[in-house]
Amino acid sequence: MSLDPRRDTRWWGWGDPAERATLSDAAERMLREHGVIDGARPAAVPELERVELPEARPLPRAVIEAAGPESVFTGAEDRIRHATGQSYLDLLARRSGRLELAPDAVITAPSAEALLPLLESCAANGVAVVPFGGGTSVVGGGAPFRGEFSQVVSLDLVNLRGIEIDPVSMTARLGAGLRGPEAEALLGARGLTLGHFPQSFEYATVGGFAATRSAGQSSSGYGRFDSLVSAIRLVTPTGTLETPETPHTAIGPSLRELVVGSEGIFGVIPDVDVRVRPAPAAQRREAWMVESFEAGNAIVRELAQAGRLPTVIRVSDEVETEVSLASSAPTGLAGAAFRRYLKSRRREGGALMILSYEGTAEEARRQRGDAVRALKAGGGAYLGQSGGRGWARGRFHGPYLRELLMDRGILVETFETAAQWRDHERLYRAVRKAVDGAMSGEGMDGVVMCHLSHAYPDGASLYFTVISSPGRDGGAAAWPRVKAAALEAIQASGGTISHHHATGRDHAPWVEGELGELGVEALRAVKERLDPAGGMNPGKLLA
Amino acid sequence: MSLDPRRDTRWWGWGDPAERATLSDAAERMLREHGVIDGARPAAVPELERVELPEARPLPRAVIEAAGPESVFTGAEDRIRHATGQSYLDLLARRSGRLELAPDAVITAPSAEALLPLLESCAANGVAVVPFGGGTSVVGGGAPFRGEFSQVVSLDLVNLRGIEIDPVSMTARLGAGLRGPEAEALLGARGLTLGHFPQSFEYATVGGFAATRSAGQSSSGYGRFDSLVSAIRLVTPTGTLETPETPHTAIGPSLRELVVGSEGIFGVIPDVDVRVRPAPAAQRREAWMVESFEAGNAIVRELAQAGRLPTVIRVSDEVETEVSLASSAPTGLAGAAFRRYLKSRRREGGALMILSYEGTAEEARRQRGDAVRALKAGGGAYLGQSGGRGWARGRFHGPYLRELLMDRGILVETFETAAQWRDHERLYRAVRKAVDGAMSGEGMDGVVMCHLSHAYPDGASLYFTVISSPGRDGGAAAWPRVKAAALEAIQASGGTISHHHATGRDHAPWVEGELGELGVEALRAVKERLDPAGGMNPGKLLA
Repeated sequence: MSLDPRRDTRWWGWGDPAERATLSDAAERMLREHGVIDGARPAAVPELERVELPEARPLPRAVIEAAGPESVFTGAEDRIRHATGQSYLDLLARRSGRLELAPDAVITAPSAEALLPLLESCAANGVAVVPFGGGTSVVGGGAPFRGEFSQVVSLDLVNLRGIEIDPVSMTARLGAGLRGPEAEALLGARGLTLGHFPQSFEYATVGGFAATRSAGQSSSGYGRFDSLVSAIRLVTPTGTLETPETPHTAIGPSLRELVVGSEGIFGVIPDVDVRVRPAPAAQRREAWMVESFEAGNAIVRELAQAGRLPTVIRVSDEVETEVSLASSAPTGLAGAAFRRYLKSRRREGGALMILSYEGTAEEARRQRGDAVRALKAGGGAYLGQSGGRGWARGRFHGPYLRELLMDRGILVETFETAAQWRDHERLYRAVRKAVDGAMSGEGMDGVVMCHLSHAYPDGASLYFTVISSPGRDGGAAAWPRVKAAALEAIQASGGTISHHHATGRDHAPWVEGELGELGVEALRAVKERLDPAGGMNPGKLLA
Repeated sequence: MSLDPRRDTRWWGWGDPAERATLSDAAERMLREHGVIDGARPAAVPELERVELPEARPLPRAVIEAAGPESVFTGAEDRIRHATGQSYLDLLARRSGRLELAPDAVITAPSAEALLPLLESCAANGVAVVPFGGGTSVVGGGAPFRGEFSQVVSLDLVNLRGIEIDPVSMTARLGAGLRGPEAEALLGARGLTLGHFPQSFEYATVGGFAATRSAGQSSSGYGRFDSLVSAIRLVTPTGTLETPETPHTAIGPSLRELVVGSEGIFGVIPDVDVRVRPAPAAQRREAWMVESFEAGNAIVRELAQAGRLPTVIRVSDEVETEVSLASSAPTGLAGAAFRRYLKSRRREGGALMILSYEGTAEEARRQRGDAVRALKAGGGAYLGQSGGRGWARGRFHGPYLRELLMDRGILVETFETAAQWRDHERLYRAVRKAVDGAMSGEGMDGVVMCHLSHAYPDGASLYFTVISSPGRDGGAAAWPRVKAAALEAIQASGGTISHHHATGRDHAPWVEGELGELGVEALRAVKERLDPAGGMNPGKLLA
């Protein structure tokens, strides 16, 4: 038997197999100029049937019985599809045709109620459990480590896709296995939206949003996922934890905030209660150009501190702006208005800003009024709506572009941070310097670009993208060293090692540097109490 | 030696000894009509020198040395002043002239750095530590239980009153010992505000705000205290925990939310980083009258779900409205406009609403525009600004009125909850019924009134006030039974047992009902790891 509902994506990479990206001539030229293309060798994708993966260890009979034999999948394709997430290194491993890790079996739970006996049985029988939602982690959050356990299963939550709406309190209980578009469709049928659109939106799931403290492209307007959660449940091997269904409680530390972000190491999130809103009646997107990244960031800071952020606001640094302009097709910036602007401006460089105003017609107008005032005062030039619309059309398209570039042997990866405004400029410079230095040491030629998004009154997130040749020893060897240099620069400059990608396996070595020894101890104490056998998602977060 | 800086209040009750409340004739009449006054016997306040309190056990020499002998206070007045909080039962105990609990000593820490060696020494020498800020808990949060320890000290944070402002990130590091007005004065000198105004504002401290998840009267506008905290530190007997200084991180569960609300059971909060704002340039307060509590609540829900709450919005139920009108002096409702309104309205009853619009002139205008639209659509009648101004003038005055009523032997107490909108009406009725029934069983005559405040998109808080004769066996015996009936009704109706008063000693028996067995276990695991000797604030929260 196979696990059909999750076979609608490329097994070796991202998304719909029918969807393909293209590269504009200008982008091709630019990558060539930066030496990206010359240093890369096109890589073929192996056949699924030829992929080598570790031999599956049979599950204990008791676990199979607890799961129900019809919910246990051991075929190669299901194991391969649950073997990695979607980081560059994950995809490189898939494309190599040899996976060093794979779950011994994939198990689906028929219902939330079925989770507890299953987790109890796994704990009693020495089986590690890796919760699996959309499989879109870019930090190894679902890597099927066996740890010290005899077997490891990937627990796919695909069947937990229910929804219950409370139209009075404007909340919805969403099953953990709902993908972004599924949740939006169910809410949309009632005129509602969750408003959570991370780049992984099309395949990531509600459970994953909660487990990783996800943030979306519209989070300035709708709030990060953690701020949308009104109550949450967690099934652990020792029982079920349910946080109070109340808008707020002063009874002790927040258990909700202990479950959100727990990345599967305490247990499994079966469903989440979230605040929902009316679907926006109005939506206006537009692009602006400002003199510099710094000037754009100042505008965002001003709006954030005045409590007047639009639904989306982002500023690309000068490099990302250049790349966006080169690959104008997806962002739609090749319009006449923009060409006029380019012609008229007196100086090189500049930073591209994308804004979206959403809500009722009046709200959208208000947002725009506030933003335009700040943009004009900050020297911004209006580029029209086509740039904004193009960004919106292409905003879930990035992973397809990465597929295309990886087909050509090009390294593409992202990492992100957040910091207080006071630390921003210093951090930005330190990270650029560290990454440039590390890449140069690895013989990697390419571009490092950045944008600011997810603004708060006290700071904002910075999101870096690297596109380069894979370096002297190949990307699998070089990238971890470059990433380490970036994380060290981030940590030394007062940034967090992740604003929304979470920890997983990849960031785990930096956790103590961020949370401190006692912070780690506090979380470890909870882990040991809720999961005494230690089998929940081994090797992640506190590894 | 005595601890002078904290001797500016009534030792037996609330606030400035020079400040006194008065009762209007109308209020007097109303209380008499409700049988409150006849059942109560005026109670004299004993002399401080005559108060009996348990004999102090001498502290171990090592603890005195760790604290520094100049920081250890064992005089009767200091022990009395640190013996209770400000609940009705606390004040009754003080007025009785016999305290069953008192700390063996009061210790002040000269600096944040001095806390760790002190806590280490207390843990090593079997001394329990009760952190003490403003002493304004109304749930026994600072009750000096010895537990299984040989001594108990009250650790007064009065000396931790520093401030550091980051004007770029718009945050401030505030010492835990700063009282509300001290913090506002320091911020105000820089044109800033924290915007946190609980009724206890004048004496409560920053550390207490954080430890109890405080909410203030302007929290609809400025946010609850927990949402203002950007980073926090916690000194435990096993070391110091510092949460990352970043606007957001996706690295695991939120340690910040584990420290906020921890009520001293893990350790001591020496200082807190909070988001601050420009002091409001405009501030307009006004009163409105709507047909019923329900109609007012519907207006609040509409504004909350549209994301258009003013800085302050509250609705009194019909009973509280009647009492407010009777005691018009503090709320200023006796103005001509109001008399005209009373004259013109056709029906009895109605619910009073207080609103405040604050921020820049434009923000205040916007808030008012949004609110007035909803108020008018909901059948509201404008009562003018004097009612709103009167409320603002009198808003920290409630505790003085309680002093006056307690002088006359009257029972005055409050409790509060929060619930999802869907549960509101059912909960409100259930609580009224339970409290009325319990009071009647105790032979208590009086009024139970309620207001809605602290609104969220998914729900709001309900705040109940009881003013009554103390009942057949006296308030000390009767009140705990009435409160228990209220809490059981709240819990059975889906409410939290506290929206912002916190847990302390008084709510501890209901914690498992709210957080569940596993939730309690998770917090207990953290407690045991950070405070293995168990001496931090024994008997609170998880008792």
